[in-house]
Amino acid sequence: MTEESWLPTLKTETPEEGYKLAVKLARKAVGMTQPDESVRKKLRPVYANNADSLTFASQVVAIHFQTVAAANNYWNN
Amino acid sequence: MTEESWLPTLKTETPEEGYKLAVKLARKAVGMTQPDESVRKKLRPVYANNADSLTFASQVVAIHFQTVAAANNYWNN
Amino acid sequence: MTEESWLPTLKTETPEEGYKLAVKLARKAVGMTQPDESVRKKLRPVYANNADSLTFASQVVAIHFQTVAAANNYWNN
Amino acid sequence: MTEESWLPTLKTETPEEGYKLAVKLARKAVGMTQPDESVRKKLRPVYANNADSLTFASQVVAIHFQTVAAANNYWNN
Amino acid sequence: MTEESWLPTLKTETPEEGYKLAVKLARKAVGMTQPDESVRKKLRPVYANNADSLTFASQVVAIHFQTVAAANNYWNN
Amino acid sequence: MTEESWLPTLKTETPEEGYKLAVKLARKAVGMTQPDESVRKKLRPVYANNADSLTFASQVVAIHFQTVAAANNYWNN
Repeated sequence: MTEESWLPTLKTETPEEGYKLAVKLARKAVGMTQPDESVRKKLRPVYANNADSLTFASQVVAIHFQTVAAANNYWNN
Repeated sequence: MTEESWLPTLKTETPEEGYKLAVKLARKAVGMTQPDESVRKKLRPVYANNADSLTFASQVVAIHFQTVAAANNYWNN
Repeated sequence: MTEESWLPTLKTETPEEGYKLAVKLARKAVGMTQPDESVRKKLRPVYANNADSLTFASQVVAIHFQTVAAANNYWNN
Repeated sequence: MTEESWLPTLKTETPEEGYKLAVKLARKAVGMTQPDESVRKKLRPVYANNADSLTFASQVVAIHFQTVAAANNYWNN
Repeated sequence: MTEESWLPTLKTETPEEGYKLAVKLARKAVGMTQPDESVRKKLRPVYANNADSLTFASQVVAIHFQTVAAANNYWNN
Repeated sequence: MTEESWLPTLKTETPEEGYKLAVKLARKAVGMTQPDESVRKKLRPVYANNADSLTFASQVVAIHFQTVAAANNYWNN
């Protein structure tokens, strides 16, 4: 049996779920570059308390949300 | 009953409302990364008084506005 | 009577007007994040005399110009 | 008689001219934010001798080139 | 016989494989700019332990994922 | 006779060649902003040994690769 994919589809039922998927996509690359969860946990308070770091994180979500929204035809169907 | 979604649709009546939605989308990811409102309140004067931080915030809005504008077919219909 | 919208449409007659609209869209988010005009005035000489800040401002205009140009079908009609 | 527009069209004959137009579009916003040419001249050696500033300038050109290339249907006609 | 291409196609079977390809595309340019693997290895702990560097890496993946997803018609076929 | 264009077309035979073209497009703007090759050579070790500068260079390539890939219809024909 194959492992379940972390990203089986870009389709979501609603825009809100699409946004959640964008957040997941943004975090995934961080996890792939820094696979050590203990390091990521140490870094979290650093960027979660820095205004520009939070904006930066939001920017990556915005880029992925463009992709997810297009994949769902902007939930217009 | 289900909670009301914070993002039921990407459709807006006007470009101006679309822009407001883009601002909302930009802020949402910040709130998801730093859910503690008291921290966000402390950070606010930091970036609201820094020119580059303001430009950065504006950039994330610009990315989301691309998405919202496309979702509304640029309000051409 | 309703107040006049600051963004009634993304349509412009010419590419040059579209560019001006992109500048307006870029500045609007700054004004929404820092509504105090006196603060924005103090910040202006800071970024207007910094090369990277100017490039950053130009980048946000570039993103909005993509949106405005697409909304106008690149003024090809 | 009206002044000649600095941006009468996004159409260019060739990709190379389209790239030049993208450079022009990137510089225009800088000139609109800092209209004083003497200041811009002083800033020029600062960013022209800084690797990241050069990359940043190149990035804004890249964003505008996306727009210009799309406006010209990638010069495929 | 020709060497095998590192990028024979943008097509992938699944979104997850598309994401992996986006990561590969992001890393490739780094390798082309800094071909010395020993240098890249020294730099790795620097950015893998810096929150903003990780976000930055994630951003480049996001841009490439847009391309790969569009190339695959968002895996909707 | 006219000089040969550095950018006669956005068309490439393969995705790999398209990626190379994206790298060329990214570097061109740097050369136009800093035409002095001796300066660019001095700057090269600076950014080639800095993790964020490498990521930044990779980001500009990613933006151009979007354009080149779209121009080639993602090499699907």
